[in-house]
Amino acid sequence: MSNVPDAFISEIESIVGAAGLVTDPERMAGYLTDWRKAYRGEAALVVRPANTGEVASVVRLCNRYEVALVPQGGNTGMCGGSIPDASGTQVVLSLTRMARIREVDTANETITVEAGVILQTLQDAAQQAGRLFPLSLGAEGSCTVGGNLATNAGGTAVLRYGNMRDLTLGLEVVLPDGRIWNGLRGLRKDNTGYDLKHLFIGSEGTLGIITAAVLKLYPAVRSVTTAWVALPSAEAAVELIGLVRGLCGDRLTGFELMSRQSVEFVLRHAAGCNDPFGEAHPWYVLIELSDTQPDASLNDLLETGIGQALERGWVTDAVLAGNQAQVAALWAMREGISEAQNHEGPSLKHDISVPVSLISEFVRTTDARLLEQFPGVRIVAYGHVGDGNLHYNISKPVGSQDEAFKAQKAAITQVIYDATARFHGSISAEHGIGQAKREAAGHYKDPLELQLMRALKTTFDPKGLMNPGKLVQ
Amino acid sequence: MSNVPDAFISEIESIVGAAGLVTDPERMAGYLTDWRKAYRGEAALVVRPANTGEVASVVRLCNRYEVALVPQGGNTGMCGGSIPDASGTQVVLSLTRMARIREVDTANETITVEAGVILQTLQDAAQQAGRLFPLSLGAEGSCTVGGNLATNAGGTAVLRYGNMRDLTLGLEVVLPDGRIWNGLRGLRKDNTGYDLKHLFIGSEGTLGIITAAVLKLYPAVRSVTTAWVALPSAEAAVELIGLVRGLCGDRLTGFELMSRQSVEFVLRHAAGCNDPFGEAHPWYVLIELSDTQPDASLNDLLETGIGQALERGWVTDAVLAGNQAQVAALWAMREGISEAQNHEGPSLKHDISVPVSLISEFVRTTDARLLEQFPGVRIVAYGHVGDGNLHYNISKPVGSQDEAFKAQKAAITQVIYDATARFHGSISAEHGIGQAKREAAGHYKDPLELQLMRALKTTFDPKGLMNPGKLVQ
Repeated sequence: MSNVPDAFISEIESIVGAAGLVTDPERMAGYLTDWRKAYRGEAALVVRPANTGEVASVVRLCNRYEVALVPQGGNTGMCGGSIPDASGTQVVLSLTRMARIREVDTANETITVEAGVILQTLQDAAQQAGRLFPLSLGAEGSCTVGGNLATNAGGTAVLRYGNMRDLTLGLEVVLPDGRIWNGLRGLRKDNTGYDLKHLFIGSEGTLGIITAAVLKLYPAVRSVTTAWVALPSAEAAVELIGLVRGLCGDRLTGFELMSRQSVEFVLRHAAGCNDPFGEAHPWYVLIELSDTQPDASLNDLLETGIGQALERGWVTDAVLAGNQAQVAALWAMREGISEAQNHEGPSLKHDISVPVSLISEFVRTTDARLLEQFPGVRIVAYGHVGDGNLHYNISKPVGSQDEAFKAQKAAITQVIYDATARFHGSISAEHGIGQAKREAAGHYKDPLELQLMRALKTTFDPKGLMNPGKLVQ
Repeated sequence: MSNVPDAFISEIESIVGAAGLVTDPERMAGYLTDWRKAYRGEAALVVRPANTGEVASVVRLCNRYEVALVPQGGNTGMCGGSIPDASGTQVVLSLTRMARIREVDTANETITVEAGVILQTLQDAAQQAGRLFPLSLGAEGSCTVGGNLATNAGGTAVLRYGNMRDLTLGLEVVLPDGRIWNGLRGLRKDNTGYDLKHLFIGSEGTLGIITAAVLKLYPAVRSVTTAWVALPSAEAAVELIGLVRGLCGDRLTGFELMSRQSVEFVLRHAAGCNDPFGEAHPWYVLIELSDTQPDASLNDLLETGIGQALERGWVTDAVLAGNQAQVAALWAMREGISEAQNHEGPSLKHDISVPVSLISEFVRTTDARLLEQFPGVRIVAYGHVGDGNLHYNISKPVGSQDEAFKAQKAAITQVIYDATARFHGSISAEHGIGQAKREAAGHYKDPLELQLMRALKTTFDPKGLMNPGKLVQ
């Protein structure tokens, strides 16, 4: 049944034991498709090493037998990066058994964790140490640190704290030939050569397998203010974030933009969501300020900012959350968009970024072009304004045939990606490339950059065994 | 006279014109030694291209003739990274004519500058735009952005804003074969492949020549509080920074540690410096809080923190600067140390980092070992506590012979670097490797890491023409 030699399987088992090997088709199934069931593959077997030494031995073995490896964490990716191909010859290497928090060093403001630690477990460990680990995203209850590193995960806190890349000080990596690079340094300054960790972060397992990391901790937040603000235009959102950031500096930890269409879908489909305003507005932002001080006057500060913005016409209405339930209700509106959109029939999801200064121009011209070429499509635009990151999703026109819309998918995506390129943006802001966007990346990225990427891939993985078919063409 | 073919020189001149070529030995001299005159080399010629196209043409020509290139910025490095070797066959490529600020985009919070822009010019441009460019270091009046990028410069603001690497969004780089990589993206999220910019930052010109960069801007600071604090031990400094950071969060923008020996040298040699306290203390820190709010209660906040630290015995005395002159006087004490030390005879300077949690143990054990093996040496330890970065400098014993001390240099450095390695630290926290520390890096760095660095060097620069003899062995 398996497409690898029996000797290979028995050698794998001698490394990881019966507990670390999955060959039963039923048990394997969960490793062969992603959480959305958008991608499905086959595998010779699934291996689940318990420690770095076992990972290294497995990788060395695969190198000897020339068997391709697909590293996998929580399997929550959006682009099929951790799903094997259809050949049944690849081995899925799941890191989920490597789930140890190795060290919390509060004086160094660092935490050392293994790749299989779930993001929420990491957040909780930081909190127990009186600290904050700021990375926050929808899948935090099941995604793993290894996946966060492999895809350079983003989310809502990037505005203040940066991407996963920015939160990382050191890495432990098993190289494609099975050697272990111990780069687990907890140093904030180290200028002694090329910064290898940045090469592995965001490389989607194509250059090696990240087994552990030293991550930064931040002071715990002791006060938070949250506001829901109505705006006349996307342009006003860009003006507003400039004003609020100038006023509040690092207290600004969230600034999420939503079009009216996005909010309408949520109000229609998400239970318990209510429009805070009596009338509809073209755009909304959810603003969050935080402070390490328990009695910081964040409400006053935000009211001052919103007051100035009202005078300038950038804001038309606003409400501050009065208690924790209201905070949760506002965030539920923001976080319910993606799910709500699924109730409106087939949709196309995009994760693009452009310079913040070009957001409104991007939205205006792309909206117009789409509505001209694909009349009636419903544009669900929302995202992280400070990062220039829009989830620019398209739902089918009301009353149209699903199949007719699906036939237009490639053409719609092309309009959006062409616009992104025209505005010097990225076709994958935070979701990565995986298998979903590899072809598009090949088309939209600078050929020279692709060439350099391929050269790096060949240097690190000359046999092409690390997650082949992902990220690099 | 020159060690390159006449045809090569005339071709260079046809690219950059007479204004871009320096062959006169007297005019060349300034490019052949660093600001401290610690390193000196020879060169076939100095070329000063005026734009990226000219840099590319020069690099392509050098590639064809197999002539080695040494990129150079403000020539303020500490490790001889921009000084050619003694052969006279290398070409110094000075970026100082490429000094244009290409764009300020306040809505995107970015500034796009050429490599030859002086750091202070960049800071001023940010300020004129109502923003902050936070990188700050002693040489800011003459160092250039290109050098800051090539060495991943640090300084006093790293605690809050990170190294030059963390301040960079995009790069333009001329590759060793003369092709131009246009990675000048102003995006905060872009997950479409290996992050090439991080490979070039800190590579000291060995992989390509950085010609321009998109850098992050921050909100302008509108209030600042500065304190001078006496401590019983280095350990207390680590406790104190934890307390202050927990209390103040990102308001903490400076936390500089100084041993009594450091302060004594300054009081003795720097004009106008006075001890704020009536008696001597073993250690001092300079604390700076900043805020975007003009009326932030920073004094109250810092007094609260210092009060708590006094109760716990981590602080023995403290004074807050009452006005701008006092702020300047306190910083002058900190910034005068290096210069003051030069008045005490020959010294050995080190720029090391260890995890913050190990600083006091590092200082205690290394002090003891040095004083045991080299009785009477004066240890001038100071630096950036939050970064784990110590300038751990050694002055000769009082009354000893200069030559006797100089003969011990290698042995003293070995004690310090051995200790750094034992504490999982770095032998070059912020100054880079250049030619000064290449041998030491070869000794102290993980052999696997050195091997990966060499593989990267070969991939990017197969002919070995980019700043040979620097950084990688």
